[in-house]
Amino acid sequence: MNNICTELSLEQVCSFLQNHDDYLILTHASPDGDTIGSGYALMHILKGITKNARVILSEPLPQKYSYLSTDMPEFEPKTVIAVDVADLKLLSGECAKPQKIDLCIDHHISNKRYADNLFLQDFGACCECIYLIAKKLDATVTKQIADALYTGITTDTGCFRYSNATAETHRAAAELMELGADAANINRLMFETNSKAKIELEKRALGTIEYHFGGKCAVMTIDNEMITETACEDSDLDGISALPRTIEGVLIGVTMREKEKGVFKISIRTFEPVSACEIAAELGGGGHVRAAGCRFTGTETDAKNAVLKAVEKVVGVQ
Amino acid sequence: MNNICTELSLEQVCSFLQNHDDYLILTHASPDGDTIGSGYALMHILKGITKNARVILSEPLPQKYSYLSTDMPEFEPKTVIAVDVADLKLLSGECAKPQKIDLCIDHHISNKRYADNLFLQDFGACCECIYLIAKKLDATVTKQIADALYTGITTDTGCFRYSNATAETHRAAAELMELGADAANINRLMFETNSKAKIELEKRALGTIEYHFGGKCAVMTIDNEMITETACEDSDLDGISALPRTIEGVLIGVTMREKEKGVFKISIRTFEPVSACEIAAELGGGGHVRAAGCRFTGTETDAKNAVLKAVEKVVGVQ
Repeated sequence: MNNICTELSLEQVCSFLQNHDDYLILTHASPDGDTIGSGYALMHILKGITKNARVILSEPLPQKYSYLSTDMPEFEPKTVIAVDVADLKLLSGECAKPQKIDLCIDHHISNKRYADNLFLQDFGACCECIYLIAKKLDATVTKQIADALYTGITTDTGCFRYSNATAETHRAAAELMELGADAANINRLMFETNSKAKIELEKRALGTIEYHFGGKCAVMTIDNEMITETACEDSDLDGISALPRTIEGVLIGVTMREKEKGVFKISIRTFEPVSACEIAAELGGGGHVRAAGCRFTGTETDAKNAVLKAVEKVVGVQ
Repeated sequence: MNNICTELSLEQVCSFLQNHDDYLILTHASPDGDTIGSGYALMHILKGITKNARVILSEPLPQKYSYLSTDMPEFEPKTVIAVDVADLKLLSGECAKPQKIDLCIDHHISNKRYADNLFLQDFGACCECIYLIAKKLDATVTKQIADALYTGITTDTGCFRYSNATAETHRAAAELMELGADAANINRLMFETNSKAKIELEKRALGTIEYHFGGKCAVMTIDNEMITETACEDSDLDGISALPRTIEGVLIGVTMREKEKGVFKISIRTFEPVSACEIAAELGGGGHVRAAGCRFTGTETDAKNAVLKAVEKVVGVQ
């Protein structure tokens, strides 16, 4: 797709939405709260201004977002919009089919400008862009829309915890709550629901933590046996690799998770000035500066030794 | 202390603060972010309107709040204010010495009305009351004050997660961030930093979880031995009492913490429609609708039985 991408102002994106119709809204692969919330909210907003619109996801709506579920109308789509999709590579399944994206609404400054038109804002969540559009369109923000927008905002900012949550993010949250967003319940579903299996796994995993390099590096191991015995599902393991880095004094948090017998998925999280990506690269992996990963085939002891050697090489810790 | 407690309006509490001087500000036992943030913020606000003020804590400022630390001026106190203190019983150490509390500023609807004057608002955090006062006084809210107020708001609402975080709470957070509150760093220190001792304690505490009433009630026990052996400080235990309620299907999460041999501090967290406050009241305690507590003297078994009986009485669970 070699096109010219026109960046739109808020006024222009609103004119675009008013002047087109029959919208197909695309969301990114492994759908999260922000792409789902943006898609569903935009669909309801467009319906409110008497347009046809429907959302497609690359997979069925995950159970935890079922409170957002709604009937999708049938019609022949004429205009394709991608929400929260920074790169064409992030479109998969049904979402990868359209040949031409007329408009992209996004909050990733790294957006690859693949769409004919782009409305891009450096916000914590794409849902903040959608809310801005709703207000400019003078659209009625129903409870259903408010719930969808709040969902995207709270999930993408880690419940207002991260540095991408700004004063404007909080103001949007305040308004959405007044418009009926059921914030406490949404946060409970998103952040406060642990399965019994996860609690049991966490207990065992915490027991494996070892400290190295004077406490600067913490290594946690989750082996096959733990996963089988606790009957944990993949979704139970979400977020657990963030744990070792949360320990006081730890700059390098490592989680080694046995995917199958003798194959470890190694997650590395670091704090400034340590590069997780460089450590992972030593082991043939990659990723971001503060979060990276790799795979290792061998025994648990070999895996641990390899990680510690990589850490030592990169950090030169005493 | 048998006194008449006068409830003050916002105007009246501001007049009170303008018409008195030499303030001693008391905070509650086991100081948390909200009582510390309220105390320190109020002290700086009062200094800003040329009053003498100092805060006392029942114990040294916990390490995790060290970014709020400041010099305390020496003077002979004339006016005593308690912040975030619902009950005289919650004053301990140096804080328990004053014979007369001139003013209490609080957000617990269960406040025992022990002070001569009371400014009470049903807010998520006491820091929201203090912020309201600062604005009404037209006081300069410095970065130092904004950090203290943000700390109380984020800690008492579980980083805007709980139902006590309202639209107004978010608006206060937005304004405090614009006034310089270092939200992302504060949240990292409050929610993403675990001591090694806490990790060890959490592992042990997770192992004590028992389910009752068909999984609707989870009880976690932290005994004296665990605290001694892991060398946990009080601040390490902040937030741990939220854990049992996060388990899928649990409506009533109970944490029993042995404060001294045979004395348990019982924290009760509930989800709708269960009233934590009613359960705590059965055991002579009190608090909020979804988060309440009480003390129990006796063996661990007796404490657990008493709690389960109270739960059964209030909820009538099968």
